[in-house]
Amino acid sequence: MFSLRQVRPLVTRATRCAHTRVQHSDIDHFRQFLQPSSILSTLTDAAPADLEPFNNDWMGKYHGQATTVLKPRTTEEVAKIVSWCSQRRIPIVPQGGNTGLVGGSVPLRDELILSLANMNKVRSFDPVSGILVADAGCILQTLTDYVGPHNHIMPLDLGAKGSCHIGGNVATNAGGLRLLRYGSLHGSVLGLEVVLPDGQVLDQLTTLRKDNTGPRHFLPVHDTSPLERTLVFFKSLTIKPYSGYDLKQLFIGAEGTLGIITAVSILTPPSPQASNNVILALPHFDNVLPLYKTVKRDLSEILSAFEFIDRTAYNLAVKHGQGRALSDEEVEGAQCFVLVETSGGRRDHDEEKLNDLLEHLLSAEQPLITNGVLSQSPAQFSSLWALREGVTEAVSKEGKAYKYDISVPLSSFKIVVDKTREHLASKGLLHDKAVKHVLGYGHVGDGNLHLNIIADAYTQEIQDALEPFVYEIVASYRGSISAEHGIGAMKTHALPYSKNDVAIGLMKQIKQLLDPHGIMNPGKVLE
Amino acid sequence: MFSLRQVRPLVTRATRCAHTRVQHSDIDHFRQFLQPSSILSTLTDAAPADLEPFNNDWMGKYHGQATTVLKPRTTEEVAKIVSWCSQRRIPIVPQGGNTGLVGGSVPLRDELILSLANMNKVRSFDPVSGILVADAGCILQTLTDYVGPHNHIMPLDLGAKGSCHIGGNVATNAGGLRLLRYGSLHGSVLGLEVVLPDGQVLDQLTTLRKDNTGPRHFLPVHDTSPLERTLVFFKSLTIKPYSGYDLKQLFIGAEGTLGIITAVSILTPPSPQASNNVILALPHFDNVLPLYKTVKRDLSEILSAFEFIDRTAYNLAVKHGQGRALSDEEVEGAQCFVLVETSGGRRDHDEEKLNDLLEHLLSAEQPLITNGVLSQSPAQFSSLWALREGVTEAVSKEGKAYKYDISVPLSSFKIVVDKTREHLASKGLLHDKAVKHVLGYGHVGDGNLHLNIIADAYTQEIQDALEPFVYEIVASYRGSISAEHGIGAMKTHALPYSKNDVAIGLMKQIKQLLDPHGIMNPGKVLE
Repeated sequence: MFSLRQVRPLVTRATRCAHTRVQHSDIDHFRQFLQPSSILSTLTDAAPADLEPFNNDWMGKYHGQATTVLKPRTTEEVAKIVSWCSQRRIPIVPQGGNTGLVGGSVPLRDELILSLANMNKVRSFDPVSGILVADAGCILQTLTDYVGPHNHIMPLDLGAKGSCHIGGNVATNAGGLRLLRYGSLHGSVLGLEVVLPDGQVLDQLTTLRKDNTGPRHFLPVHDTSPLERTLVFFKSLTIKPYSGYDLKQLFIGAEGTLGIITAVSILTPPSPQASNNVILALPHFDNVLPLYKTVKRDLSEILSAFEFIDRTAYNLAVKHGQGRALSDEEVEGAQCFVLVETSGGRRDHDEEKLNDLLEHLLSAEQPLITNGVLSQSPAQFSSLWALREGVTEAVSKEGKAYKYDISVPLSSFKIVVDKTREHLASKGLLHDKAVKHVLGYGHVGDGNLHLNIIADAYTQEIQDALEPFVYEIVASYRGSISAEHGIGAMKTHALPYSKNDVAIGLMKQIKQLLDPHGIMNPGKVLE
Repeated sequence: MFSLRQVRPLVTRATRCAHTRVQHSDIDHFRQFLQPSSILSTLTDAAPADLEPFNNDWMGKYHGQATTVLKPRTTEEVAKIVSWCSQRRIPIVPQGGNTGLVGGSVPLRDELILSLANMNKVRSFDPVSGILVADAGCILQTLTDYVGPHNHIMPLDLGAKGSCHIGGNVATNAGGLRLLRYGSLHGSVLGLEVVLPDGQVLDQLTTLRKDNTGPRHFLPVHDTSPLERTLVFFKSLTIKPYSGYDLKQLFIGAEGTLGIITAVSILTPPSPQASNNVILALPHFDNVLPLYKTVKRDLSEILSAFEFIDRTAYNLAVKHGQGRALSDEEVEGAQCFVLVETSGGRRDHDEEKLNDLLEHLLSAEQPLITNGVLSQSPAQFSSLWALREGVTEAVSKEGKAYKYDISVPLSSFKIVVDKTREHLASKGLLHDKAVKHVLGYGHVGDGNLHLNIIADAYTQEIQDALEPFVYEIVASYRGSISAEHGIGAMKTHALPYSKNDVAIGLMKQIKQLLDPHGIMNPGKVLE
C-alpha cells in the first residue's frame, strides 16, 4: 500500500524546537506515578503490533512511529506527564477514539501518545438543568446511554459515536447530525478542564475558586436518593457562569495543539418525546433548495436534521448493505436524496406537521420529490438513519477515500462534486484502476458538504490532481476547507485558503504563548 | 450626589503604562481623515456638556473626564485612529449605546472615547440562511426591524434594545430574554470584524482570503430583485465556516479590552409564526422549580422564555406604570411571578399546548399557581412583556440602584435576595434614607438572577455592606459574579470570586499578547 506519509515532506515543529524522543529513563519516571497497565512502550516490553491501533488511523492513511503510549487515569496524572514532557521537550499527541479523518490524532513521527481512553468516568449529571460533566475519554454513545434514562440526549450525534470520545469531539469542534437543531459546541459546551502545555490545570468546569473547600463534584445520578437529587440540583452549575474572557473557547477546535482537554461540562437537551424521519427522492439537485425552504416553513422548530445524499452515495450505501429505504423502481430517476428528521414534544402535533408537509409535497403541481418513505416504527426510523450514517462505512469498504469536509453554499454542492469528477476525468484518472467514484453528502442546514473521492489506492498522482484544485474551488465559493473534521495533519498547508494572514498570524501568536516549546500535537493545525 | 468614582482608589493600567492624553496635535491628525462631525472635543470647540452623554453612564454611577469623542464612519477610520493611539499610547474606550450596567463603556479618567454610533449600516442579509452582517453600531431594535419583514428575528432581546448596539451586545456577551431558546452569542455569532490594538483589522466575517478579488459583501436585501436574491444566496456565507482556532470567541465578552468590534455576522432564526405569553402568580417561591419542570415538559420546544419576578419587583413595575397584568385582588398572596413565553411554527398546536398546560396547572390538587393571565391580543402580549422589561426602568425611577447580575442555581434565587436584605437590616441600613428595597428578577432558564438594591443615594457605607458580602454568597453557591452584564469597571476586583488563578493568569497573558501597551479600555475586566 502506498502511504501519503512517504511522499509528503516531513517538516514539523519537532525538527525546529530541539524536541527529544521518549527514552527508557522517561519510562522509569512515568512508572513512579502511573499504573503498569497505563504504560505501553516498545522501549520496554510491548510489541510493535501493540502500538499499531494508536500509531495508525482507521482509514489506513496516516502512520506514526511512536514507541510509547500512556493511558493516565486522572487529570493529575495527565498534568504530571505533561509537566515532565515540557521539561524534557518531548512532544505529545493527545488521542481520543482515534476516529478522526484528518490525521490529527496520529503522530507524525515518534511523539509520545497520550491516550485519554482510561479517563472514562461520568463526574456528575444534573437531571434538572441537563448539565453533564464527564471525563474527556467517555465515548459519545456511552454518554448518550447515560443521560437517556433521565430523558436527556447529547447535543451532538455522529457516525463514529460508538468509538469517538467527547474530548475529541470538543477538540475537533465536531458538528454532526444535530447541529441544525442544537447548535455548535461553542454554545453547548459550558466548561472545560484542560491541562496546559506547561502542566498547569485550567479548571473551567465550575466557577468555584481553587481555595473553596466545598465538595468538588456533585454526585453521579445513579448514586443518589431523591433527597440527594435535590441536593444535586442545589449545587448544580448554572448555564452561563463565566465572567471575563471565555478561555474555554480557545480549546474548542484547537485539536490538542494548545493543551489536553481532560473533562467537559456540556448542556444536554431534554429528549424529544417523538422522533420521526423520512427519506425523499428528488428528480433534480435543483429541487434541494426549494425543498429545504418548504420543509423549514412547515416543520419549523421540530425540524432536527436535513441531510443530503447524492445518488452515488446512496447506491454505495445500498450496495454495502447499509440499509435500503426504497425499491429499485421507486428510486428510478432520482438524482439525489434527502433525509428529514423531526423531534418534538408531542407526537400528535409532530405527525400532523409531517403529514401535512408530505401531502403538500405530493399534491404540488410540479412536485419537488418523486417518492419518499416515512418511517412507521422505531426499527424503520433506525434503518433510514443507517442508510445516511452508513455512507462513511460504505465508502471505506469500496476503496481508499480522499475525504474533503468543506463548507460551501448549499446551491453549489452539486457543482463542486461535478467539477471535481470532471477534473479527474480530464486528467485521465477516472477509471477502475485510479478513481472509481466521486460523491457528495452532508448537512444542508450548515452548508457542510462531505466530498469523497474513492480510489483504488492512495497515490501521489491523484493527490496532486485533487490539491490544490479542491481548495481553490472552495475558496471560489467563499467556503471553508474544513467544516467539522478539523485541520489535523491533512490541511495545515491549505489553511490560507480559508484564513487570512492576520488571522493565521494571531493563531501562531496564541500557539506560541500557550505552547512556547511546541510540544503539543506538533505539525497539526499550524504548519 | 455621592459618586463611587470618588471613593474607589483609581489604579488603572494607564498609570502604569505611561499613557498619554489626547492633545490638540492629535485632533489635528484625526482631522486629516475624519469628517468634522466625527470629532467632538473640548480641546477645540465642544462644550463640556456636549461630552456628558459619553462621559457618564445612564444610571449616573460612573463618570469619566474624556476631552474627546471620535465617531468614525468606517472600519478603515477606526483602524487609523487605533493605529495612531497605539503609537502615541493614548488609551481608548470603545463605546456603543452606553447602556451597560457595570461602567464598561465610560472612561475611568480622560481616555479617548471611540463611539461606534456612526457605524450603523447593515452590510448584508441572506434571507435563506438568515445570516445578517451589520456594522457594530447598529441598534438592536433597528436590526430586529430590518430582518422582521424577511420573517427572521434577532437571536437576542433585552430591555435596552432601543439603544444598545449589536457590537456592544457581542462585546459584553449579552444574554437577555431569548437565551433559553436561541442560546448564547458564542453560538449565534458567526463572525466578527475586529480592529486589534495595533490597528490591524482581523476580518473573520467571511472565510475569504484577503487576496480574493471577488465582491467583498453581498447586496443588502432592499436593493435586490428576485434574481439578485438568488445570487445573494449563491454567495451566502455558510453557518460553520471556520477552520483553526476560533479567534472571534476571544472578543465575545472581552468588553473592548482586546480590540474594537466593528462588524458582526450573526445567525438570525426564522420568526415564529405564533407567539403567546402568560403571567402566573405563585403563592410560594418554592413552587418555581416544580413549575419550571412542568412547563418545560408540557411546552417543550416552543418554550421561549421563563422569567422570574419577585413580589417587590412586580410591585415597583406596577407602581411606576410599567404595565399591570392582574388586579390587586388577583395578586393577593402571591410571593412571586413567572412570565412564560411560547414561540412556535403553528398557532393551533401552540395554543393547544399552552391551554393544556394551564388546565393542568389549575386542575392540580395542590396548584403551583394561584392565578394567571394569558395574553389574548398582540397588545396584551406586549403589555405582559412590558411589565417584566419595565422592572429595570422602575428600579431606576425608584432610587439609586446597586445592580448585581449573578449566576446562581435557581433554587437559591430567593435565599440570596433574602440574605442580602437581612444583612443590610443587620447593619441598620434598611430604611428610607438608606436602602429602600432589595429585589430579584431574572432568567430562570440560565440561572441568571438580577439582584437589585435600591438606595436613596450611592454611599460608601452601603457599598461596603454589599461587597464583598454579595460576592461571597455567590461563591458559596458556586455561582458567577457576572452572568450577562460583564465585568466592566465595577467587578474587576471581584473576578477572583469566580475565576481561579490559572484562568486569571491566562487572561492577563492574552491581554498582554494582544494589547502590550494596555491602551484598549484600560481598567476594565482586568485590574
